[in-house]
Amino acid sequence: MEIGWKRKAEELVDHALAEDWAWGDVTTQALIPPDAEGKGSFVAKSTGVVAGLEVAHLVFSRVDPSLKFKSLIHDGGKLQHGTRIATIEGKVGSILQGERVALNFLQRLSGIATETGRYVEAVRGTKARIVDTRKTTPGLRFLEKYAVRAGGGQNHRVHLGDGILIKDNHLAALRARGLGLKAAIDLARKNAPHTLKIEVEVATVEEANEAVAAGADIVMLDNMSVEEMRRAVKSVGGRVMLEASGGVTLENVRSVAETGVDLISVGALTHSVKALDISLEMEPLTH
Amino acid sequence: MEIGWKRKAEELVDHALAEDWAWGDVTTQALIPPDAEGKGSFVAKSTGVVAGLEVAHLVFSRVDPSLKFKSLIHDGGKLQHGTRIATIEGKVGSILQGERVALNFLQRLSGIATETGRYVEAVRGTKARIVDTRKTTPGLRFLEKYAVRAGGGQNHRVHLGDGILIKDNHLAALRARGLGLKAAIDLARKNAPHTLKIEVEVATVEEANEAVAAGADIVMLDNMSVEEMRRAVKSVGGRVMLEASGGVTLENVRSVAETGVDLISVGALTHSVKALDISLEMEPLTH
Amino acid sequence: MEIGWKRKAEELVDHALAEDWAWGDVTTQALIPPDAEGKGSFVAKSTGVVAGLEVAHLVFSRVDPSLKFKSLIHDGGKLQHGTRIATIEGKVGSILQGERVALNFLQRLSGIATETGRYVEAVRGTKARIVDTRKTTPGLRFLEKYAVRAGGGQNHRVHLGDGILIKDNHLAALRARGLGLKAAIDLARKNAPHTLKIEVEVATVEEANEAVAAGADIVMLDNMSVEEMRRAVKSVGGRVMLEASGGVTLENVRSVAETGVDLISVGALTHSVKALDISLEMEPLTH
Amino acid sequence: MEIGWKRKAEELVDHALAEDWAWGDVTTQALIPPDAEGKGSFVAKSTGVVAGLEVAHLVFSRVDPSLKFKSLIHDGGKLQHGTRIATIEGKVGSILQGERVALNFLQRLSGIATETGRYVEAVRGTKARIVDTRKTTPGLRFLEKYAVRAGGGQNHRVHLGDGILIKDNHLAALRARGLGLKAAIDLARKNAPHTLKIEVEVATVEEANEAVAAGADIVMLDNMSVEEMRRAVKSVGGRVMLEASGGVTLENVRSVAETGVDLISVGALTHSVKALDISLEMEPLTH
Amino acid sequence: MEIGWKRKAEELVDHALAEDWAWGDVTTQALIPPDAEGKGSFVAKSTGVVAGLEVAHLVFSRVDPSLKFKSLIHDGGKLQHGTRIATIEGKVGSILQGERVALNFLQRLSGIATETGRYVEAVRGTKARIVDTRKTTPGLRFLEKYAVRAGGGQNHRVHLGDGILIKDNHLAALRARGLGLKAAIDLARKNAPHTLKIEVEVATVEEANEAVAAGADIVMLDNMSVEEMRRAVKSVGGRVMLEASGGVTLENVRSVAETGVDLISVGALTHSVKALDISLEMEPLTH
Amino acid sequence: MEIGWKRKAEELVDHALAEDWAWGDVTTQALIPPDAEGKGSFVAKSTGVVAGLEVAHLVFSRVDPSLKFKSLIHDGGKLQHGTRIATIEGKVGSILQGERVALNFLQRLSGIATETGRYVEAVRGTKARIVDTRKTTPGLRFLEKYAVRAGGGQNHRVHLGDGILIKDNHLAALRARGLGLKAAIDLARKNAPHTLKIEVEVATVEEANEAVAAGADIVMLDNMSVEEMRRAVKSVGGRVMLEASGGVTLENVRSVAETGVDLISVGALTHSVKALDISLEMEPLTH
Repeated sequence: MEIGWKRKAEELVDHALAEDWAWGDVTTQALIPPDAEGKGSFVAKSTGVVAGLEVAHLVFSRVDPSLKFKSLIHDGGKLQHGTRIATIEGKVGSILQGERVALNFLQRLSGIATETGRYVEAVRGTKARIVDTRKTTPGLRFLEKYAVRAGGGQNHRVHLGDGILIKDNHLAALRARGLGLKAAIDLARKNAPHTLKIEVEVATVEEANEAVAAGADIVMLDNMSVEEMRRAVKSVGGRVMLEASGGVTLENVRSVAETGVDLISVGALTHSVKALDISLEMEPLTH
Repeated sequence: MEIGWKRKAEELVDHALAEDWAWGDVTTQALIPPDAEGKGSFVAKSTGVVAGLEVAHLVFSRVDPSLKFKSLIHDGGKLQHGTRIATIEGKVGSILQGERVALNFLQRLSGIATETGRYVEAVRGTKARIVDTRKTTPGLRFLEKYAVRAGGGQNHRVHLGDGILIKDNHLAALRARGLGLKAAIDLARKNAPHTLKIEVEVATVEEANEAVAAGADIVMLDNMSVEEMRRAVKSVGGRVMLEASGGVTLENVRSVAETGVDLISVGALTHSVKALDISLEMEPLTH
Repeated sequence: MEIGWKRKAEELVDHALAEDWAWGDVTTQALIPPDAEGKGSFVAKSTGVVAGLEVAHLVFSRVDPSLKFKSLIHDGGKLQHGTRIATIEGKVGSILQGERVALNFLQRLSGIATETGRYVEAVRGTKARIVDTRKTTPGLRFLEKYAVRAGGGQNHRVHLGDGILIKDNHLAALRARGLGLKAAIDLARKNAPHTLKIEVEVATVEEANEAVAAGADIVMLDNMSVEEMRRAVKSVGGRVMLEASGGVTLENVRSVAETGVDLISVGALTHSVKALDISLEMEPLTH
Repeated sequence: MEIGWKRKAEELVDHALAEDWAWGDVTTQALIPPDAEGKGSFVAKSTGVVAGLEVAHLVFSRVDPSLKFKSLIHDGGKLQHGTRIATIEGKVGSILQGERVALNFLQRLSGIATETGRYVEAVRGTKARIVDTRKTTPGLRFLEKYAVRAGGGQNHRVHLGDGILIKDNHLAALRARGLGLKAAIDLARKNAPHTLKIEVEVATVEEANEAVAAGADIVMLDNMSVEEMRRAVKSVGGRVMLEASGGVTLENVRSVAETGVDLISVGALTHSVKALDISLEMEPLTH
Repeated sequence: MEIGWKRKAEELVDHALAEDWAWGDVTTQALIPPDAEGKGSFVAKSTGVVAGLEVAHLVFSRVDPSLKFKSLIHDGGKLQHGTRIATIEGKVGSILQGERVALNFLQRLSGIATETGRYVEAVRGTKARIVDTRKTTPGLRFLEKYAVRAGGGQNHRVHLGDGILIKDNHLAALRARGLGLKAAIDLARKNAPHTLKIEVEVATVEEANEAVAAGADIVMLDNMSVEEMRRAVKSVGGRVMLEASGGVTLENVRSVAETGVDLISVGALTHSVKALDISLEMEPLTH
Repeated sequence: MEIGWKRKAEELVDHALAEDWAWGDVTTQALIPPDAEGKGSFVAKSTGVVAGLEVAHLVFSRVDPSLKFKSLIHDGGKLQHGTRIATIEGKVGSILQGERVALNFLQRLSGIATETGRYVEAVRGTKARIVDTRKTTPGLRFLEKYAVRAGGGQNHRVHLGDGILIKDNHLAALRARGLGLKAAIDLARKNAPHTLKIEVEVATVEEANEAVAAGADIVMLDNMSVEEMRRAVKSVGGRVMLEASGGVTLENVRSVAETGVDLISVGALTHSVKALDISLEMEPLTH
C-alpha cells in the first residue's frame, strides 16, 4: 500500500481490536502458558485475489510487536485453494488474540479484490475500465477502494469533494427553479474547483448529447440498455468519457464493455462483499 | 434499538460522514439553491427484513438537525418490493449530503437482518436457535450483532471477554505441554470469571462426551456431518447445550437443526453481507 | 499484565500526563540543565502488595523513551518497609516530569492489591474466593480489576454485558407487571446470550431456594447475616454457586467465608482505595 | 460547577459509561419492559458533604436525555444519614443503566468533599487554609480539585505549568552543578513566566530563611515537626506565605494550623479517598 | 457556511477552548458574580471583509448554550471602521470565557477574507480568478479555504487527493529514470482517478506548449515574468487553462491578470495572515 | 524543545497530515517510482530566526520513519538568505508527501521567532522583556508560544488558569454591583490559587497607583501614551512589575521600553504572522 495508509489504518485496526478484545481474552488468559510459542500459516481455501496483507501485518504488530509476520505473496497476487499467503510466528497467546481481527480484514479485502478481478477479467481486451462507487462499508472506504485497485479496478470519487457528479436529484432540484442541464453545468464550472472534471448522469442518448454540448467532461449513462449505450457511444463519438452505471453484473459486463464505454462502475464490488475463505492453520512450536 | 446505542453509534456515523464529506460536497455546493426543499422516500426494491432505521435517522440528524425523518415501519419488519420504509423532508442539499451514508448503513444492516431471517425461517419448528459469530466487519460489530437480532437471530460472544470458548488452537497449545481437555476446562474454571459459561469446540462424538464429562457448559460441534451431529445429540442426551458450527448454509441448515442441536452459528450472516436493495426517491417541494 | 493491556493503557497514561503537564513544567524547564542525569529508586514505605509496575514503566517511556526503568519485583509481590521496587535512570528533567503520574498509578493500584491481599489472606483455607464489583474509579476499571487479580482476588463482571445479574430493582420493575422471580430467569434465559450465567440477588433463604428452583446459575446473598448465610448454604446444598455480598469488612470476612459460600464480593476493594506509601528517592549522577 | 466544566466532563462521563456499558446491558435488555417507568432517590447513608451532583446529572442525561434529574441540595451542602440528595425519574431501563456510573462519581467526589470538610473544620479559627496536592486519581484531577473546593478547601497547583515549586530533587540536580538555593530562585525568576509565584521546599528553619532572603514568594515547610514550624513562622515573620506539608493528619492538623502557617497541604484528600455511602432507592411507577 | 462545516468545526472549536481554558478561568471564577449579565458588541476597527461569524457563534454556544449571539452582517460583507458585526448577550462570565477564542477565529478568518478581497478587487474586469494554495495553517485549512471564498476567491486543491498537480520535483524524479513530461502526463492519465484534471507546472513558454501537446488540462506558469506569461497565453491560445503562480503581490497582480491567464494563485492569502482588528465592547446589564 | 512537547505535537502533526493527505496523493502515487530516492535541503530565502525544526522532523518521521532528517542549525539560530537549515533524505514519494506540511509548520514558527527577535533586538539594553499574548492561532498555542521563546521573548499566560489578569470587563461587571478595584483584588486573593500573581489592567497613572495600593503584583498599563507610561513608572517606583500593552509596534517599542516598564506585550507576534520564506530544494539520487 502507499505511504500514509498506515497512519490512517492504525486507528481502524486499534478500533477493531478494542471491539474484539474489550478488556481481556478470558480463554487465552486462563489457558495459554505465557511462554508458549507457535507458528501459523494463512492459507487460501478457494481461488481469488489477495488484498490486505499489510493490514493483517499491522493487526499483529499492534497486538504484540514481538510477533513475526511474513507475507509470501503481494497484494493483488492470485490465490489457489491451498496457497500459503503469509506466516505468523511468536507467542501463541498473541497470535490467537489477533487472529480473528486479522482475518476479518484480510477476508473482506480479498473478497473485494477477487470480485473486482472477475469483472476486470471479463472485460479484458475492451477499452473499458472497471471502477467502484461510494457504496462502501462505513468506516472502511479507503481500504475498500485500495482493494478495488489491488483487484485491477480503478477508483471513482473517494468523497464528495474530489469529483463533480451531477445526478438526477441535483437536476430535479434545479428544474424546480426553471433551470436545465446547461445551467447546471455552468453553475458547476463557475462555482466548483477548477481541478475537478464535471460528470453528468443522463438517462437517454438525447440527454447524453445535451450534456456533451453543455460542456460536460464525463457523461454517466445511467441504467441504459446495452443497445442504448451503443447508440450513445456512437453519437458522442469520443468527445467525452462515457461511464456505464446501474445494473451491471458479471453476466452482462462484457456486453456493456463491448458497447465502447470508457468506464463501468459496479456498486456490488463494495456493497455486497463475499469474504474470501482464508484460514489460519496453527502448529505449536517446541523448543 | 436499546438505550446507549446512540452514544456509541454517533461516533461511527460521524466518521462515516467525514469519510464521505471530507471538506465539502462540491456538486451540491455549486448547484443546489440553499433554500431548496424536498421530500424523499426510502423504498425497498426487493423483499427482506429492515434494520438500521434509527441509524439512518441519526445520519440525517447529524447532517442537519432541521431535517425531518419519519420511519414507517420498525426494525425487524418485513419488506416487499415497493414497501415505503421511511421519509425524509427538508433542505434538498442536506438530504443529498446524507443520502449515501444513510443508505450504506441501512442497506448493509437490512441485508444482515434479511439473511438472518431466512435462516430463522428455515429452522422454524425445531428447537435450534440461529446465532452469529465474531466474523463481523471491523468497526461495525455492535450494529451488525443488532441486525442479527432484528432478523430473529441471537448473539454469540460479542468480544473475547464475554464467553469462554476453548478452541482447537487452545487445546493444541496445551497438548504441547502434555495437558488435555480436562485440564483445559479445569484451568478455565479456576482462572476465568465465574459469570461466564465454558464452551468447548470438539470434532468428534467422543470428544463431545469427553468435554461433557470434564464439565463443559456448552459443546461446539465443529464441522461435523449431520449424521455425526445426530449421534452427538443422542449421546450427550441434553446434559449440556450443543452448538453446530462450520459449513452451515441455507440449503443444509434445516437438516442440521433437525439433529436436535440447541444452537447453530452461521459466520456468513456477517462475513458475507449482500446489501438489501433500497433506494431514496426524491421529489422537489414547491412552496 | 496480559497482552493487549498496553494498547489500552497508553490512552490513560497519555491523558494523565497531559493533565499533569498541560503545556510545560515551568520549574524543571527553568532550573534543570538539559543534560543532567540521575537515578531514582521506588521504595516502599509500608508493607503491602505491589501492582502497576508496567503502568509506571509505560509512564516513563511515554515521557521520554530514553529513560531506563527496571522492575526489581513482579506485580503481586510482597513489599516490606524499605523494599526497593524499581529503578529509573536517565535525564533528571524527564524523571521529574513522570514522577508524580507514575506514583499516582503505582500507589493506587498497589493500594488495591494490598487491600485485596488482606481479604484473601483472611479467608485462606476456606473455599471462598474474594471478588470485586463495578464500584470502580471512572476510567480506571480495567486497571483496578487487574490490581484485584494481582492481590489474589478474582473479577466479577467487568461491564454490563459480560454477566447476567438480576437485582432487586430489576425484580421490582417486573413485579409491577405481575411477574416474579421465575419469570425473570426465564426472560434472561430466552433473551440473553447463551454464553453467560444467570445470577440472581436474593435477600432471604426462601428466595435463594426459589432462585435455585427457577434455574439460577449463581445466587447472590445480599446483606444477609452470617447466620442466614449459613442456612442458605445448607439449604442450597451445592446446587449452584453462592455469593455473599454487602457489608463485608476485614473484620467479618472470615466468618462470612466459614459459612461455606463460594464467592465474597467486596466493594471497598475499589471504591475506597488507600494509596500505598511508595516514594521515589533520587540521586544525581555525575559523569 | 463553573462554566466550561461540562464540556470537559462529558468526555469523562462518556468514557465511564462506555467502560460500564461496552455493548449492552444484557440483564436490563432481557428483563425490563421498554415502557416501564420508575423513580429513584439518592439517599445519604452517613454524614458528610456532597459533591458531584452536576456530574451525576450529566451521566443520566448522556444515558437518556428524557430522564428527569432533580438536585435537592447544592454541592458543598451537609448530609445526614437519610438526607435525600436528588431524584431521578423516567424509564427504569435508563435509570438502571446510569445508576452505577452516577454513584461511582458521586460517592468518590462526596468522599473527597467530606474529608476536606473535616480538615477545614479542624482548623477553623486559625488563619490556615487547607490545600490539595497533585496526588490525584489519573484522569479525574479537575473533578477532584473541584470536590476539594466544594468541601471548603483550596487548590494548589493544577498542573506543572501553573506554579513554580522548587523541590529537593530540583535542588539536588543543581547542587551537582555547584549551584545553590539562591541560584535556583534566580533561574526561576529569569526563565519562568512572570505571572507565577515561586515556591521553595525547605527542610529546616535555616533553609526557610535562606529561601526568603533569596526572594521566594512562598516557602513550603516539608515534614517539619510542629515545634520547628512554629520557629519557622516566627523567624520568617510574615515576609512570605508559609505552607506546611507532609505527614498531616486529621489528628495533628489543628496543632499544625496553630503554628501560624498560611497553608496546609494534605495529599490524603485525594490519594486515599473513602467513598461516601450513598444509595439509589427505586420505586416503580404505575400509570 | 455550507452544511457539514459545523460538525467539523466543533472539534476545532472545542480544542481551541480547551487550549485556552485548560481547567478553569481563575480570574472570572474569583471575581464575576455567577448571575451578572451583560451585552457585548463585536465592532470592526478597520475596513475589511468579515468571515467566521458562524464559527464565533459556535464558540459561544459551546461555552454556554444560554448565550444569545446575533450576527448583524453576513460572511463576505464589507466592514468599515466602527461597523457593528454581531452582538452577544447573557452571563458576563460566559462571554468573557469565550471572547478570546471567538476573536482569534474571527480576526484571522476576516483577515484572510479581507486580503483576498483586495486581490479580487485588483483584478476586477479581467478574466483572472484569484485562487488559494495548500500553504494554510496546520489544522485550519477548511476554515481558511472558506474565508478565501468569503473574500471572493476560489479554492485550488484542498488536499493531495482532489487534483493532480505535476510539479518540478515529480518531473525531476521521473527524469532520473529517463522519463519526460509526456510520460508523466500519460502516467497520471493511466493511474489517477478519471474525475480529476491534470495540471502541470512549467517554467518556460516552451514547456507550456509541450505540456499542452502532451495532454495537460491545466498549465501552471511558475515564477514567470509578466512578459513571459503574456507570451505563454498567446502561444497556448486558450487550448487549456493557465494558472499564474509565484511571486504574486497586490502590487503586481493586476499586470499578471492582464496577461490573460485564467487563474492566479496567491500563497500569501493564507500563509501570511494579518488579523483584522475587531474588538468586543462590553456593557454590563442591570436588571 | 522541552520534554513532553513531542507527545503533544504528534496529534497536531497527524491532524495536519490527514488534512493534507486525506486518502492519498494521487500525483505521487501515479508518477513516482516506489523506489526512487532523493535528497532535499531546506534553505532560507530571507534573513530571520528559525523555529520548528523538531516539528518538521516529526512530520517526516510520521510520514515515513525511514526518512532521514538532519538539522544543520538549532531553533533560535539566525538565518541569512541561502542558509541551509536541514536536509531530508530517502524515498522521493515520502519526502514529497511531507514537504508542504513540514513547511507550513516551519515557515509559520520561524515567522514568529523572526518577528519576536526583531522586537527583542529593538529593546536591547533596556530592562524590558518582550512577552506574547493569548492572541494565538486556535490549536497551535503551545507551538507558537515556543516560537516566541525561540525568538528571545517570554511567555505571558498560556491559558486562563495560569495567571490572574483583572481586565476592564471584569471591573465593569463588579462596578455594576458597586464594587471597585480594591474589592476585585481582595476577591482574587481570597478565591484564586495562591500560586498565581495578580495582574490588573489600568488606563491611567492614578489607577496604576490605586492597583499597587490595593495589592496588585503586576500592573498592566493599557494603551497609555509613552509619556503616561513614563509617569506611571516613576510613580510606582518599582513596587510592582509594570507591563506595557496595546498599540506596540516595531517602530515605537524602543521608546516604550525606555519608559522603564518591565514587560511589553505584543499581540502581533502571534496574531499576524508573516511566514518566513523557506524552500525545499530537491535533487534525485542515482544509485
